[in-house]
Amino acid sequence: MVSSVIDIPDFFACNRALVDSELNRLIPSETHEPVRLHRAIRWSVFAGGKRFRPTLLIATGEAFGAAPEQLLRTGCALEMIHTYSLIHDDLPSMDNDDLRRGQPTCHVQFDEATAILAGDALQALAFQTIAEDEQLSPEIRVRVAAELARGAGTPVGMVSGQARDLEAESQTINARALEQIHLEKTGALICAAARCGAIIGGANDSELNAITDYAANLGLLFQITDDLLDVTATAGEMGKTPGKDARSRKATYPAIHGLEATRAKIKAAHAAACNALAQIDRNPDTLRAIADFVSRREA
Amino acid sequence: MVSSVIDIPDFFACNRALVDSELNRLIPSETHEPVRLHRAIRWSVFAGGKRFRPTLLIATGEAFGAAPEQLLRTGCALEMIHTYSLIHDDLPSMDNDDLRRGQPTCHVQFDEATAILAGDALQALAFQTIAEDEQLSPEIRVRVAAELARGAGTPVGMVSGQARDLEAESQTINARALEQIHLEKTGALICAAARCGAIIGGANDSELNAITDYAANLGLLFQITDDLLDVTATAGEMGKTPGKDARSRKATYPAIHGLEATRAKIKAAHAAACNALAQIDRNPDTLRAIADFVSRREA
Repeated sequence: MVSSVIDIPDFFACNRALVDSELNRLIPSETHEPVRLHRAIRWSVFAGGKRFRPTLLIATGEAFGAAPEQLLRTGCALEMIHTYSLIHDDLPSMDNDDLRRGQPTCHVQFDEATAILAGDALQALAFQTIAEDEQLSPEIRVRVAAELARGAGTPVGMVSGQARDLEAESQTINARALEQIHLEKTGALICAAARCGAIIGGANDSELNAITDYAANLGLLFQITDDLLDVTATAGEMGKTPGKDARSRKATYPAIHGLEATRAKIKAAHAAACNALAQIDRNPDTLRAIADFVSRREA
Repeated sequence: MVSSVIDIPDFFACNRALVDSELNRLIPSETHEPVRLHRAIRWSVFAGGKRFRPTLLIATGEAFGAAPEQLLRTGCALEMIHTYSLIHDDLPSMDNDDLRRGQPTCHVQFDEATAILAGDALQALAFQTIAEDEQLSPEIRVRVAAELARGAGTPVGMVSGQARDLEAESQTINARALEQIHLEKTGALICAAARCGAIIGGANDSELNAITDYAANLGLLFQITDDLLDVTATAGEMGKTPGKDARSRKATYPAIHGLEATRAKIKAAHAAACNALAQIDRNPDTLRAIADFVSRREA
């Protein structure tokens, strides 16, 4: 079998353009009162993200035969949740970051109250976007909304992961606790992205399990390579302050396991993600190429 | 016609017990990791609220013939959104309140980061609760979720109202701007409560319009009497710091219109709420009694 060559940077760029255009339509304009709130929302949403979660959703949905227009709005909802989490994580009482994607963070450019409200509004708009998505049946919409809410919230979602991460800053944690933080803080929303794509594409339960396994490993890959980039990259390459994790004694893979073992973990997670894809009788080329791409991003 | 006598404090107490019991079931326990997050969520949710929004939803739903069990979880979702908004509004960068319902606010009892995350998690849990509510058809769930999201978010919801309110603190605003703040900050979620009840009860479009009109006036009543209480009550009566609005030069009805005209506005909003109910061919006794009760709460 000759597998088609997939240009992942191109795939991301195309989907990013689609997602950005739809986000622009969904988010209130900067001229709409209260303008400071809407300017802050747009500042953070259009700060240059890769749209990783929407693109993963689209790749998964297309693997299961969903049409692009059935996936776009859920993709935007995922990006709204992701952006709200970045805005809140950057706040002084959380990670206290001044720089994000090479630009001042929301609370630096505007103010803390506006940044909190911008995040709050984006979360509401994410669920509104799904609830009103007429490309999907009400049955699919409620399943997708439940996936997104579980992935974003607590007790095993993005918010609980961030809470665990903050608790970990003041103590020495072991490898298992670190893995749990990553599974929730980054992994849960990445899993939700892949699962929503599969649900919209009509995946059955065993296919959904395989996709969840794939996405959990992809999420780990993503987080471990992110930790590694924080150690090895420069500010210009990252668009954020490198070395910050180590300075704030944040638990990271390189800090707990060392660089060598961290690279071995990347290989293992990559293999596990590919094995999960082999369980599905669909065309997994794009999903496998995404796993390849993420595992190589620190190289 | 002999109208039955409705004991509104009793109606609130009964519904509060039902809502609290269901909230207790829906919210992760304090022993669930990360415990600090879940303790903070429960601290704020079970701090002694009146459950006004769920009770209004239940009263409206019952007026349209909905069964109590069809209304309870949406009521809990409304209360989760309301509680998250209180937690975030109390933060130092927002209203900077130390006391709420007679207890230390969430960020005082825990810390700022935990309070932000507790609010974020409650918003996600609200939408999860609706998406997973098997007492309602998927068609009704997506309509209810959309109502809640619009009422909670921006550009004409609770978050935009709070953003307008913060902007107003640094400037002199007129009566029209104050009304817009109230319509969004308090009114939007109160409207969503009544509209969700009517939708679950199967209201048609003209009934939904009348209920919206009723709820918009009830929301104004609620906010104006709240402003008045801030001027006239003691800390013991309010469970929060009275006179705070005036000290922070927050725009309020008494500050802009004076006490006399504020009381006249209460009468006008009460009459408008009752007129709206007269448009509906249902039993409006409980809804009218709620309007009576709210308009008298500062007396």
